[in-house]
Amino acid sequence: MINPFTDEYFMKKALHEAEMAFDKDEIPVGAIIVVDNTIIARSHNLTELLNDVTAHAEMQAITAAANYLGGKYLIGCTLYVTLEPCQMCAGALYWSQISKIVYGASDENRGFIKMGTQLHPKTKVVSGVLALEAADLMKRFFMEKRNK
Amino acid sequence: MINPFTDEYFMKKALHEAEMAFDKDEIPVGAIIVVDNTIIARSHNLTELLNDVTAHAEMQAITAAANYLGGKYLIGCTLYVTLEPCQMCAGALYWSQISKIVYGASDENRGFIKMGTQLHPKTKVVSGVLALEAADLMKRFFMEKRNK
Repeated sequence: MINPFTDEYFMKKALHEAEMAFDKDEIPVGAIIVVDNTIIARSHNLTELLNDVTAHAEMQAITAAANYLGGKYLIGCTLYVTLEPCQMCAGALYWSQISKIVYGASDENRGFIKMGTQLHPKTKVVSGVLALEAADLMKRFFMEKRNK
Repeated sequence: MINPFTDEYFMKKALHEAEMAFDKDEIPVGAIIVVDNTIIARSHNLTELLNDVTAHAEMQAITAAANYLGGKYLIGCTLYVTLEPCQMCAGALYWSQISKIVYGASDENRGFIKMGTQLHPKTKVVSGVLALEAADLMKRFFMEKRNK
């Protein structure tokens, strides 16, 4: 039997969250956190609506997942996020000891790889999953912003 | 006339917050944010109580200050924090464009300097203000933890 729960399957859910951010005029980044093929947190960037630089999709997802689990460590969890995490979010993921991070589009200017942010040594990283879809959404967002 | 609003004056307020964390059995780190000599945010580490790795003193202070100001950028603000910020908090401070960061004790293992986290180019940093007091509180906390 084919396993339907692929990285692409869950990244589509994160992309759906990114589209929800887009519709609210937020930079379109979405995230979900999964444990044992179950989504335990869904979020999207809300920095404009909340007037808060800390309200990135990943930060909200970390808080929500820990709340769901009743403990602050996300061992056994996977984060799916449409854009490469920034220093802040990678720093939060470091503390969470999350087992796996899957991201879509790279952020070559402010992503954690360019910035040299350290993840927890036990965290695995997969990149480029539905990267084109995530990058297209970002491009469309900034193009519409410029044309307004 | 002597200006009472020195860095030591405000760091004492942050230390008071750190003591409040200590009393709640939290790693004792406190923070305040000041604009024009007025304290607009006070916070202390609540990671245990909230079961949330993102609940560092600085993160809460950034959110509270932005809420007070009604805008997400902290230009013109100074953060006083008893311990050198970590990657996550320094990453959040980067996005906030805060004007000045004053910290007490250095964190030679997980502080942003060792970790290489980038702050905003316009952010000034002052270190070592009441560092002994802040470090003593941390030592006392971990000593009591070991003896429990």
